[in-house]
Amino acid sequence: MPIQSKSVPDHTTRIRVRYAETDQMGVAYHANYLVWMEVARTELCRSLGFNYKEMEGEDGVFLAVTEAHCRYLSAARYDDDVAIVASLADANRRFVTFDYEISCDSRRVAVGQTKHIFLSKEFRPIRLPDKYAPLFGMA
Amino acid sequence: MPIQSKSVPDHTTRIRVRYAETDQMGVAYHANYLVWMEVARTELCRSLGFNYKEMEGEDGVFLAVTEAHCRYLSAARYDDDVAIVASLADANRRFVTFDYEISCDSRRVAVGQTKHIFLSKEFRPIRLPDKYAPLFGMA
Amino acid sequence: MPIQSKSVPDHTTRIRVRYAETDQMGVAYHANYLVWMEVARTELCRSLGFNYKEMEGEDGVFLAVTEAHCRYLSAARYDDDVAIVASLADANRRFVTFDYEISCDSRRVAVGQTKHIFLSKEFRPIRLPDKYAPLFGMA
Amino acid sequence: MPIQSKSVPDHTTRIRVRYAETDQMGVAYHANYLVWMEVARTELCRSLGFNYKEMEGEDGVFLAVTEAHCRYLSAARYDDDVAIVASLADANRRFVTFDYEISCDSRRVAVGQTKHIFLSKEFRPIRLPDKYAPLFGMA
Repeated sequence: MPIQSKSVPDHTTRIRVRYAETDQMGVAYHANYLVWMEVARTELCRSLGFNYKEMEGEDGVFLAVTEAHCRYLSAARYDDDVAIVASLADANRRFVTFDYEISCDSRRVAVGQTKHIFLSKEFRPIRLPDKYAPLFGMA
Repeated sequence: MPIQSKSVPDHTTRIRVRYAETDQMGVAYHANYLVWMEVARTELCRSLGFNYKEMEGEDGVFLAVTEAHCRYLSAARYDDDVAIVASLADANRRFVTFDYEISCDSRRVAVGQTKHIFLSKEFRPIRLPDKYAPLFGMA
Repeated sequence: MPIQSKSVPDHTTRIRVRYAETDQMGVAYHANYLVWMEVARTELCRSLGFNYKEMEGEDGVFLAVTEAHCRYLSAARYDDDVAIVASLADANRRFVTFDYEISCDSRRVAVGQTKHIFLSKEFRPIRLPDKYAPLFGMA
Repeated sequence: MPIQSKSVPDHTTRIRVRYAETDQMGVAYHANYLVWMEVARTELCRSLGFNYKEMEGEDGVFLAVTEAHCRYLSAARYDDDVAIVASLADANRRFVTFDYEISCDSRRVAVGQTKHIFLSKEFRPIRLPDKYAPLFGMA
């Protein structure tokens, strides 16, 4: 049964743009947005009541990225205080999709989406263990 | 006038996966694929007869990323010899789209696409200068 | 006149180890420690009353790294809550040295040091402008 | 017995500075030099007759960094063709030290050094297996 995604609250993570993340155009290098999405995903998971680190370490369940997309709307710059709103767009026992909105003050910086598959340590697709299902909004 | 993209040859760039690029899942971290695409884009430009560094430095034309997409098909691992085929998918005086196919031996690793806009140093949209048009397959 | 470094308070910055920062050894990749030092340096500057971004943007003064050193004592891992204590070790109008202590809970993770020179936009060595001197502990 | 380091030839690796590696100062960000040293170290190992990937994967021997040092002499910029000469400075069954000289054309860019310890998968210090000793210049 797919999630009723509205039942799972979104979560806002804040990061400061690092000097290391800028490029010679004077803005944050575009690949770093995917890193920020990952940071926001970790924090969304924590806010939903589970620790991604433990899911990997204790249950051997990995959330591998199968697709990533980002649309860049305006630049983020060094030392900017950036907000990333992560939300669960879709989930079942095999796949999860997250949406992201990145902004700086009231300015929209980017929107993105990542799709994931649950994998075992041996990189085989597996079903999400029962105990995690409710946290992803599944009955 | 849009390009007849078939008239512009694609280009293959090879990179070795760096230890720095792996993550604790034991594979290349997904955001690095966007970096490899950028490396392949630079080399495609060079193969088409112009140096992206000079376009930025001498003409003040920047090729900013407006959209990036990647579909991950299989893992790339440390020390893998990865081939990135970059090709010009679409181009006019304001926008360019590049396609990428990433593989390791005969195994497909990922496919991706980036869309770009030409910007001035002041981050205003500009038209590609005449001298570069033929290199992008435009009359 | 060199600083009496004791007169300048140190500053503690906290970061969470990102998945992107791990490598296939399962720990934070060593080069990222230099990035964390840079983050801590920015925050130390802010705590001393000036914004490094503004010093670059408004005064054209860059703090280029001339030397970096790090001793790795124990591993930092994904999602670890890491503290970086940055302090001003030495400063005059031409050079600055920062010390760093990186720890996780009560465990020492690393110690490091970076040396810097003040540069103009044209990459020529310059003297630190008067207005910044007191903030670096100089009379 | 320590190595007679002169008996082990050094190795030169070439890399192109990536756009991702630049920062808003318009030069390669300093932490990336440690990544380049790692790339050069991998290639030095390959030139000495062993594959670091296999040593990790098949023998469970990890070469963890215990210390890194870099002195920055001049800037490396986007698209620069950079040469990294890596050499074995010192080695015994428990520790290895590598030296690096980074240059661009005839201009010296940086000099660096990394110290390493051999670790098991469980992160315990171990002795280098016999079969690798000659490759590191040990009898």
